Amino acid sequence: MLLYYLDLAGVAVFAASGVLATRERNLDVFGMLVVATLTAIGGGTLRDLLLGRHPIFWIVDHWYLATIAMATLITLIYLSRRPPPGLLFLAADAAGLAIFALSGAQLTLAAGHSPMIAVVMGTMTGVFGGILRDVITAHVPLVLHKEVYATAAIVGILVYLALRALSVPETGAFFTGVAVVFALRMLAVRWGLNLPSLPRQ
Amino acid sequence: MLLYYLDLAGVAVFAASGVLATRERNLDVFGMLVVATLTAIGGGTLRDLLLGRHPIFWIVDHWYLATIAMATLITLIYLSRRPPPGLLFLAADAAGLAIFALSGAQLTLAAGHSPMIAVVMGTMTGVFGGILRDVITAHVPLVLHKEVYATAAIVGILVYLALRALSVPETGAFFTGVAVVFALRMLAVRWGLNLPSLPRQ
Amino acid sequence: MLLYYLDLAGVAVFAASGVLATRERNLDVFGMLVVATLTAIGGGTLRDLLLGRHPIFWIVDHWYLATIAMATLITLIYLSRRPPPGLLFLAADAAGLAIFALSGAQLTLAAGHSPMIAVVMGTMTGVFGGILRDVITAHVPLVLHKEVYATAAIVGILVYLALRALSVPETGAFFTGVAVVFALRMLAVRWGLNLPSLPRQ
Repeated sequence: MLLYYLDLAGVAVFAASGVLATRERNLDVFGMLVVATLTAIGGGTLRDLLLGRHPIFWIVDHWYLATIAMATLITLIYLSRRPPPGLLFLAADAAGLAIFALSGAQLTLAAGHSPMIAVVMGTMTGVFGGILRDVITAHVPLVLHKEVYATAAIVGILVYLALRALSVPETGAFFTGVAVVFALRMLAVRWGLNLPSLPRQ
Repeated sequence: MLLYYLDLAGVAVFAASGVLATRERNLDVFGMLVVATLTAIGGGTLRDLLLGRHPIFWIVDHWYLATIAMATLITLIYLSRRPPPGLLFLAADAAGLAIFALSGAQLTLAAGHSPMIAVVMGTMTGVFGGILRDVITAHVPLVLHKEVYATAAIVGILVYLALRALSVPETGAFFTGVAVVFALRMLAVRWGLNLPSLPRQ
Repeated sequence: MLLYYLDLAGVAVFAASGVLATRERNLDVFGMLVVATLTAIGGGTLRDLLLGRHPIFWIVDHWYLATIAMATLITLIYLSRRPPPGLLFLAADAAGLAIFALSGAQLTLAAGHSPMIAVVMGTMTGVFGGILRDVITAHVPLVLHKEVYATAAIVGILVYLALRALSVPETGAFFTGVAVVFALRMLAVRWGLNLPSLPRQ
């Protein structure tokens, strides 16, 4: 139940990130709504398609679409009043990444698949909505930026799997995972945290 | 039955828009055919995947692929004879948007889903083929342009739903919806029609 | 059985092409792994989704993901020691294209569909992983380049279908098809082979 609200929260923050990404394009409100919707449901829809879960989550439960509409509206009202703080877009994206990475991993385990598949599916669920948003709005996908991005999702899912293996209750493990992804990603953005990569030749 | 021919027409015009989008790339004919095919079947394939309709429409009925091949050939012959009028690409795209938005909405209702889902699914079906085309050919997606685009699809679907609710026969409601989307979009292109958007800061 | 190993080889070479495509981006290793994974499983996942084959191939068999991890690691070790030869990326992509085009065609026939659908599905399976890779890494998709690309896939699949129709044993027909795609594509890259296209106006 708590998880359901968290999922709605993930949809809301990703929708907000979609609206923020289209901002300099001067789109009308329905255009923004379409980009917000694709961003918000992209990851979860891919997850449901890959796991063969029908009907897709947002088709049977209207609260998802209603949440996207509300999140879009609130973001627009907020934007019309003051310029957005620089980190707002990145924080909304990080929150969506965190929530969907963990929910993707959890649903994969619940469907009887192995932890290895859960890591891959969770990571893809987390990053896909953002990739879709960035590709459609003609930005370089965040997953390609230098700072820790996919790594944050993977580490958070691994923490969740480790806590589960140590018999930590599901809810605690889940939220710890979400917190780890979000914290790692925001630290990366704030202080330019990144893993060593190949030296350029 | 009429609907089936309309669907084929949607596939044909989107295929033509795909060919026109690859034009300055100097692609060979099979490369163009691949882009035309992805554009033409992209929206409907997403619709079928999301609704869990198997087999996918173009897999069981060869007329879709044959139509794409013919539309590609005719577009190429036409292009080899004279330069395309400036609006041809936008008109082909608008026709595809109109047909697929309405067919997506109609099939969603027929599958027993609510009008709200029909609006979202219809809009996604209409815009997805074009987004795929524009992303693959490295253009800025039309849905991101300033003029009315997603709005045209949404308004047309709402008109269709309203007419149905008023007991207008299905075929009449459907074609009125298609006409509304196409007309709105062409007016937007021709006279730069756009909704008020946020003031830039 | 042989086919299974070939499929793993396709996953491996596409993963390597994904790593090579992210190289100038200075990504960390997990970011590369995500791009490698999306490239390697993109085509096959689309194929399984379109054919309604569940579970998706890489979800039930861990060797696919293990192969991607190993291929990524080997590519990284190789890259850290010497600059890659110019053709390495294109050869890895051509090998992936060849293998997935043919495996897509074969699985489509095995699912009872017609040769025409096998050509389309095989071509889409072959090109999709590479399109995903190029779009995510903000490159112009190889399928849009001037040299023979989609054509190589289509010709190879047609050769395979022709040999099958002539009662050539399945394995021989399959590998001949793979060889034709790979050879055509590499010839195209090496000597700028391309089909006549429309004269620019």
